[in-house]
Amino acid sequence: MNPMIGRFGTKRLVRSLQTGRVLPALFLTMIGLIFVFAAIMRVVDPKSFQTFGTALWWSASTVTTVGYGDVVPKEPFGRFVAAILMVLGFAFLSLVTGTIASALVSRFHVDKESDPVVQAIDRLERRIAELEKRVG
Amino acid sequence: MNPMIGRFGTKRLVRSLQTGRVLPALFLTMIGLIFVFAAIMRVVDPKSFQTFGTALWWSASTVTTVGYGDVVPKEPFGRFVAAILMVLGFAFLSLVTGTIASALVSRFHVDKESDPVVQAIDRLERRIAELEKRVG
Amino acid sequence: MNPMIGRFGTKRLVRSLQTGRVLPALFLTMIGLIFVFAAIMRVVDPKSFQTFGTALWWSASTVTTVGYGDVVPKEPFGRFVAAILMVLGFAFLSLVTGTIASALVSRFHVDKESDPVVQAIDRLERRIAELEKRVG
Amino acid sequence: MNPMIGRFGTKRLVRSLQTGRVLPALFLTMIGLIFVFAAIMRVVDPKSFQTFGTALWWSASTVTTVGYGDVVPKEPFGRFVAAILMVLGFAFLSLVTGTIASALVSRFHVDKESDPVVQAIDRLERRIAELEKRVG
Repeated sequence: MNPMIGRFGTKRLVRSLQTGRVLPALFLTMIGLIFVFAAIMRVVDPKSFQTFGTALWWSASTVTTVGYGDVVPKEPFGRFVAAILMVLGFAFLSLVTGTIASALVSRFHVDKESDPVVQAIDRLERRIAELEKRVG
Repeated sequence: MNPMIGRFGTKRLVRSLQTGRVLPALFLTMIGLIFVFAAIMRVVDPKSFQTFGTALWWSASTVTTVGYGDVVPKEPFGRFVAAILMVLGFAFLSLVTGTIASALVSRFHVDKESDPVVQAIDRLERRIAELEKRVG
Repeated sequence: MNPMIGRFGTKRLVRSLQTGRVLPALFLTMIGLIFVFAAIMRVVDPKSFQTFGTALWWSASTVTTVGYGDVVPKEPFGRFVAAILMVLGFAFLSLVTGTIASALVSRFHVDKESDPVVQAIDRLERRIAELEKRVG
Repeated sequence: MNPMIGRFGTKRLVRSLQTGRVLPALFLTMIGLIFVFAAIMRVVDPKSFQTFGTALWWSASTVTTVGYGDVVPKEPFGRFVAAILMVLGFAFLSLVTGTIASALVSRFHVDKESDPVVQAIDRLERRIAELEKRVG
């Protein structure tokens, strides 16, 4: 892949995380993961997940890190797939939380009226303008 | 709805998240969700939730993402409602954490004595004031 | 209580959260909560928690939001006390995470060599010093 | 240990947390913890964890705070070791989330084109350059 496009894509991704614009996409990805992992589990461990609804119930409680444990995989490979979903759920929780924190903090700077740093710089700007007039 | 009012409301909401003023309201909403989802579950799956107290016990352990699993819905629609509460609990955890992070970071800027950025700008301001005096 | 002392205490608390100095105290408080809630449960629901060790096992899995569910209170009042510990665990997770985020972000500003904002202000300071020399 | 080296190591660690460079290392450490605690449990409570795969299944669900509860230690010492892993999982979730939040916020400052603070300082810099020309 063209590295320029790659870097551009990374930059756009980081920007959308910082501003929180990515949150609806993250939410949809999470819903998607629930369906994809339910489907995989139906194939991998059909004895433990006798209906697709039961598999959905398990994947929803796993990706949200709730983990009731009333329905769980018993096959080794099913447990391996489940472990991947647990780590994904863990990563999602971190990513969504970090994104919300970043979006709130960065909007603080963007909202000029309430950011003391931007206000202090604005004060400086006015004094320099004053200086410019005096100097001629 | 008037878009101006809509944007004003959004701005006020974002502000209250940034400063953490929204935290008591988020806390009350969470307590409210526990009661509302317990009531829904009593109607949707009365066999699994034989008393309102049992339903409350389940909804508290779900929204906090603890998820004991000793009491769980068994009806498909009950599990669907439960999945909504799990996702809401997940979203709450992200929102509360992001709000606390943002409130702590933004107060860092507000507390002028300890923010090196605001201190550096203050130093600049004093030097420009000195310049103004010399220039006349 | 003297409001000045009250505000001073709040300010010190917020500072210790921002810098992360509070983290060891939060950790000890969490360990303390595990012991206190285990002791309460032994009194409130001795049938479900037949030894203090079992109660500790339950309170550790609850405050960390793991929630195995192999040991759970069955008495209504025990469940009420447990719900308080769940909410406390939820609040702790938010507070510890928000504190770590804030500590990392604020140290970014303190570490002058790597903060582009502080670097930009330093550049400004040197140029104003240059101006001062020229003006006399 | 030489305190200079110690402080240097701490500074590098804090930097790698702030920028998020540490995230792959944190991820590998978490995978490592799953294996190490599974091995410990096989030794400490072999009756509850009859295969290494079962122990892995338990440690994965514990460190991610999912906590199904279908496999749990029953020996007091096993429960003590498990409590350590729960607290480590809790700490990991906080650390990873805080690191992501900090990395997103700090990159906001580094990306000069989009940070209003850096933009405002750039504007100031241009005006001071203008002043320098006029003063001579």
